[in-house]
Amino acid sequence: MAYDLWYWPNIPGRGEFVRLALEAADIAYRDRAREEGADALVADLQARRGLRPFAPPYLVDGDFAIAHVAHILAWLADRHGFGAGDLPRDLELITLQLTISDMVAEVHAVHHPIGAGLYYEDQKEAAARAAAQFREERIPKFLHYFEDALAPNGGPFVLGSGWSHVDTSLLQLVEGLRYMFPQRMETLGERYPRLQACCEAVAGLARVAAYRASDRCIAFNEEGIFRHYPELDSR
Amino acid sequence: MAYDLWYWPNIPGRGEFVRLALEAADIAYRDRAREEGADALVADLQARRGLRPFAPPYLVDGDFAIAHVAHILAWLADRHGFGAGDLPRDLELITLQLTISDMVAEVHAVHHPIGAGLYYEDQKEAAARAAAQFREERIPKFLHYFEDALAPNGGPFVLGSGWSHVDTSLLQLVEGLRYMFPQRMETLGERYPRLQACCEAVAGLARVAAYRASDRCIAFNEEGIFRHYPELDSR
Repeated sequence: MAYDLWYWPNIPGRGEFVRLALEAADIAYRDRAREEGADALVADLQARRGLRPFAPPYLVDGDFAIAHVAHILAWLADRHGFGAGDLPRDLELITLQLTISDMVAEVHAVHHPIGAGLYYEDQKEAAARAAAQFREERIPKFLHYFEDALAPNGGPFVLGSGWSHVDTSLLQLVEGLRYMFPQRMETLGERYPRLQACCEAVAGLARVAAYRASDRCIAFNEEGIFRHYPELDSR
Repeated sequence: MAYDLWYWPNIPGRGEFVRLALEAADIAYRDRAREEGADALVADLQARRGLRPFAPPYLVDGDFAIAHVAHILAWLADRHGFGAGDLPRDLELITLQLTISDMVAEVHAVHHPIGAGLYYEDQKEAAARAAAQFREERIPKFLHYFEDALAPNGGPFVLGSGWSHVDTSLLQLVEGLRYMFPQRMETLGERYPRLQACCEAVAGLARVAAYRASDRCIAFNEEGIFRHYPELDSR
């Protein structure tokens, strides 16, 4: 039976980290809000009670719903065998995945530093200051960390020759940063050869390549997490 | 053998969510940086390589290190039996715990909206705007969500009569919000009776009460996540 994925239908956003792993692992899923619209997502989320997702994305399997990107991916990896298959390594992958989630939250906060409930246009000055901090301090700190995580097993993937959810997520993260900060990422580009090799290896996986060339894959845009506002970028 | 907990020694911060569960479950741990200082924490973190923690808190068991509050707590709950002991329920607890982590990150961003690398004094104007958004929109949205999660099993805890890491974390979260936003939380107080009952039940656990009365427990202060800046509070 196919999983139901619920996420906003017009952006890659956080949902894309889940989609990429589902596609890479050839797992059947229905992208419900892309079939039925954003109103159906809001209705589904509001109809849930008790222990339930706080926000999209969430994945539904029968009566069971699971939310948060890192949590969904760890669960899928365990069920579908694209983790390490060894508890301490799988737990280390989750630590990495949660750090990716933290960086994604910081990326969103760059263009919405005052609050997600306000328009970007109402917080542009604060965003410009936040972007300078993020470009200078945070991007190198996070990318150095991921570069380091790719060293012990020889690459191209974190676990070595087999991909995991961390690798597909690193591709999306780096592509998003390149979309949002093309100048800054060009400056930093050469510093992270293992990360570059990992992204190329993920992009070269047949199922990932087919997915990214399909109309199932939504392009980055200015409604999403990674937004290209030229005024927020700089070398 | 006792675990090593590594976290900043002068604030409750994110470490406190881990400490509370360790104390409630009577698990032996050494709070390393409180014994050896913040420099020892920095040195320990910098000496780690490969798949490693990005930031404190992290918990060390022999050669294995695990980071991120929700991840540490899920792992401890599984090992020491303070989760549900049933996979779907345990996964739902993790969804809740990750939502607590998201709220904690938003709390920090209220007083540091431009960036964690700048002083509060250099971002006070943006912080005042962020605080208004957070008080009005985010606190009620998150607290309503947790109130709802406490309903299905009849309380006082999320699972019913037995505490889990989510309950100890809800106490710390609510206490932190009361410290940071005393006026706002007084206004909202009556709206969440299940959350209030949960907090009282956790605070009434003998080991939690003994810990909070001890000098092992660090008081909230203006170096931490939850900071009382009166200018950020309002009814």
